[in-house]
Amino acid sequence: MTAINDLLAFQRQTEALSSVAERLGWDQETVMPRGAVEQRAEEMAAMEAVLHERRTDPRIGEWLEVAEPESEADTRAVELIARDFNRASRIPARLAQELARVTSLAQGIWAEARANDAPEDFLPTLDQVLMLKREEASAIANGGDLYDTLLDDYEQGMTGAEISALFAAMRPRLVALREAVLGADGQPQPLAGHFPQETQIRLARICATAFGYDWARGRMDIAVHPFSSGRWQDSRITTRVVETDPFNCVYSTIHEVGHSSYELGIDPDYAFTPLGRGVSMGIHESQSRIYENQMGRGRAFAGWLFKRMSDAFDGLNITDPDAFYATVNRVTPGFIRTEADEVQYNLHIMMRFDLERDLIAGRLTVEDLVEAWNARFQRDFGVVVDRPANGVLQDVHWAVGLFGYFPTYTLGNVYAGCLDQAMRAAVPGLDASLAEGDAAPGVEWLRENLQRHGGLKRPRALIEDATGLDVSPEPLLAYLEQKFAGIYDL
Amino acid sequence: MTAINDLLAFQRQTEALSSVAERLGWDQETVMPRGAVEQRAEEMAAMEAVLHERRTDPRIGEWLEVAEPESEADTRAVELIARDFNRASRIPARLAQELARVTSLAQGIWAEARANDAPEDFLPTLDQVLMLKREEASAIANGGDLYDTLLDDYEQGMTGAEISALFAAMRPRLVALREAVLGADGQPQPLAGHFPQETQIRLARICATAFGYDWARGRMDIAVHPFSSGRWQDSRITTRVVETDPFNCVYSTIHEVGHSSYELGIDPDYAFTPLGRGVSMGIHESQSRIYENQMGRGRAFAGWLFKRMSDAFDGLNITDPDAFYATVNRVTPGFIRTEADEVQYNLHIMMRFDLERDLIAGRLTVEDLVEAWNARFQRDFGVVVDRPANGVLQDVHWAVGLFGYFPTYTLGNVYAGCLDQAMRAAVPGLDASLAEGDAAPGVEWLRENLQRHGGLKRPRALIEDATGLDVSPEPLLAYLEQKFAGIYDL
Repeated sequence: MTAINDLLAFQRQTEALSSVAERLGWDQETVMPRGAVEQRAEEMAAMEAVLHERRTDPRIGEWLEVAEPESEADTRAVELIARDFNRASRIPARLAQELARVTSLAQGIWAEARANDAPEDFLPTLDQVLMLKREEASAIANGGDLYDTLLDDYEQGMTGAEISALFAAMRPRLVALREAVLGADGQPQPLAGHFPQETQIRLARICATAFGYDWARGRMDIAVHPFSSGRWQDSRITTRVVETDPFNCVYSTIHEVGHSSYELGIDPDYAFTPLGRGVSMGIHESQSRIYENQMGRGRAFAGWLFKRMSDAFDGLNITDPDAFYATVNRVTPGFIRTEADEVQYNLHIMMRFDLERDLIAGRLTVEDLVEAWNARFQRDFGVVVDRPANGVLQDVHWAVGLFGYFPTYTLGNVYAGCLDQAMRAAVPGLDASLAEGDAAPGVEWLRENLQRHGGLKRPRALIEDATGLDVSPEPLLAYLEQKFAGIYDL
Repeated sequence: MTAINDLLAFQRQTEALSSVAERLGWDQETVMPRGAVEQRAEEMAAMEAVLHERRTDPRIGEWLEVAEPESEADTRAVELIARDFNRASRIPARLAQELARVTSLAQGIWAEARANDAPEDFLPTLDQVLMLKREEASAIANGGDLYDTLLDDYEQGMTGAEISALFAAMRPRLVALREAVLGADGQPQPLAGHFPQETQIRLARICATAFGYDWARGRMDIAVHPFSSGRWQDSRITTRVVETDPFNCVYSTIHEVGHSSYELGIDPDYAFTPLGRGVSMGIHESQSRIYENQMGRGRAFAGWLFKRMSDAFDGLNITDPDAFYATVNRVTPGFIRTEADEVQYNLHIMMRFDLERDLIAGRLTVEDLVEAWNARFQRDFGVVVDRPANGVLQDVHWAVGLFGYFPTYTLGNVYAGCLDQAMRAAVPGLDASLAEGDAAPGVEWLRENLQRHGGLKRPRALIEDATGLDVSPEPLLAYLEQKFAGIYDL
């Protein structure tokens, strides 16, 4: 009886400390003075040392052996604690420290290599990261598949084989849709003009409010790369401003509101337990995507946004709401994943998945990576990569050791497709409300059926319970085909 | 050989964690969403638990027994670590927790009692705090004087008897000066008007820059009660805005720049060692005061500020720089310590010192405190306290257990007086530079002679080495008498 209480009390303090470490990260990206870099690195390292010591504390093992959880929530909490403890305990301290050191250095080396378009300056470091990640996966996998082990950390229960099958089913229809769209007559017009920062930020706040962001438990700041951070009573968002492209700010904001609202929507009874955080990267991404895309880039909300933006900027070069809706969803060729539209985005993910799975399996070497990337890009997108910064150097993920992370983006889209189908059926008035700039009916449905559960259920079960359907790419593909057939008159 | 290294490495991590805890406090007072109160309390408690465990870690005792420091800095570091370890180890865990719990509650109870002018709602809690602080002091004092023990925590080496003698020497001359000033013909005019927040903040930034604030290692935000926070590469200031009184913002800012610049001025070799923080509350206050008063409220800087403010606010009701200088230094009767001028401020401290020393000694009970406060105030200031919020309820210090803290404010003024005398002798061109809005020559002298040493020397030795004089109230008193004789034509 007391073991379970001791275990949960110990975990509660660990969760509080990990929340502090996360807040330090927020501070660093938003408000920290530029001269504080060394100090912050030392503070973060001290917090990580404390957290690592707690995560591998031998008492956890002892408590786990005798703990007798009685409720569903405690049973799941114990499962999640055991999972983290086993992962953390299997990684030798030397390896953990080396990984922290090398990935921290690698981030700087990657950034400089990207700025200089010089992959050769980065690849030796990437090779080091890859070797260490393989070593880490071997330590945890205990004979199992290395890639599955890495993937499982971000998406519990998912395997490389399942992702592979999922992507194979999606790929032909996405390729066909892409070709149809890019070959269509009457391409949408881009938005043109100069859009002042202050007005964009005001608009972003209005959009965050439209999507139900709880300002009493959050705030919005500017960061180089938008992110959300925090949980329970304090989950903050960031956005960015490009003065030639107000969609960047608006849709980054709605995207981060999705992430943040997921955290804020979790049952407060789970706060500072292992159930008090979003359950997986894929589920997290499903929330940011359904806010941004299925709701935010739909015709209904686009119509409302058209009026708001026309007023805010004293007129636009696009003067019709249907044309504006097409502009919001405009598909154009491009090298960069983060700038990709809904049609092409998942194709970017698929190539990364195949490449990183080959890297981890040892079927592809870092030495051959640039060539492999460029060849694959040309095959998938029909364009030759013009420079490494637009190719293999564009994403930070591999530099910081995030192998197995990319597929969760597409999983998020797939989950969002399933959720959207169920939400539309359950909330028939959603579009009417979005047309008035109010996402509340959709947000409430998501909160009730998904967000409030936090980590209680495994990702797949969470989606299936929420939607009453098996997880499948079909709803996403049908949504995309229908939406873009309408916009491009296919 | 290794014990000293292990000890210092352990301490370094503790310093980094304590810096993180301090940053959380900054976050709470400046940017935290209002709904995050419970979460933050739990985060702070978790950090405090980690810090308490480290401060009382038995390994420190073992290392201390065999540590052989070789340099002057390491010797002092070991002295400071031993001091903290002994204090922390002597306080029973139960008492430490109870103190944390009660003072945390007491702060809220005090704030409400002050808002309602209801001391009876607060006094029972204050009594609890007092009993716990006496218990704490007994545990540490080991038979020594309780008040000295508390005072020593804020000002190493200082005793109640020394403070008492110091205050007795200062008191008659301050009382005489106060009476002469308040009875003088031709009282300075107050500043009148409405001063927009944005302009005040712009002005505050200009003043912070004039006093050499390092914006690459700091930032300025708005807080209810201005404070400074942080060290080494990241020391931030806050300010407040009262739209009828721009001096509040300007001089709060300069005051906090003094605190912050002290931390930023410490030799970076001492960073995250026990020498890497300001050495005492009195020394800290000497820096904020000499920036704010001896430099900031002097005739030279006031002349420059007059021009800046006249321009910024499109003219003032005071149109002459000498009259403006008098207004900046205007002495008026008042109940509130934090609003007091240079002449009366120390009299506020003296009554608090006597009352808190009697409380700790058991010569005065909390029950009799309101009456004792009001009687003493009338005797010292010749005015009847009109309501408790203007009397015993005005300061938070006792509610949060800060007994022995108040005298360090006057010590700060005394130190500032000594430093100012030495600085003026060493930097003859200081006023000419201040008249151009540049405090650099003074700031550089303070950095070189005081700030850079951090915790290397004990407070008294630090001042005596910097000035070549014994610590004495004479320079402060002579400065005040001369300054106010000039302004009030005495």
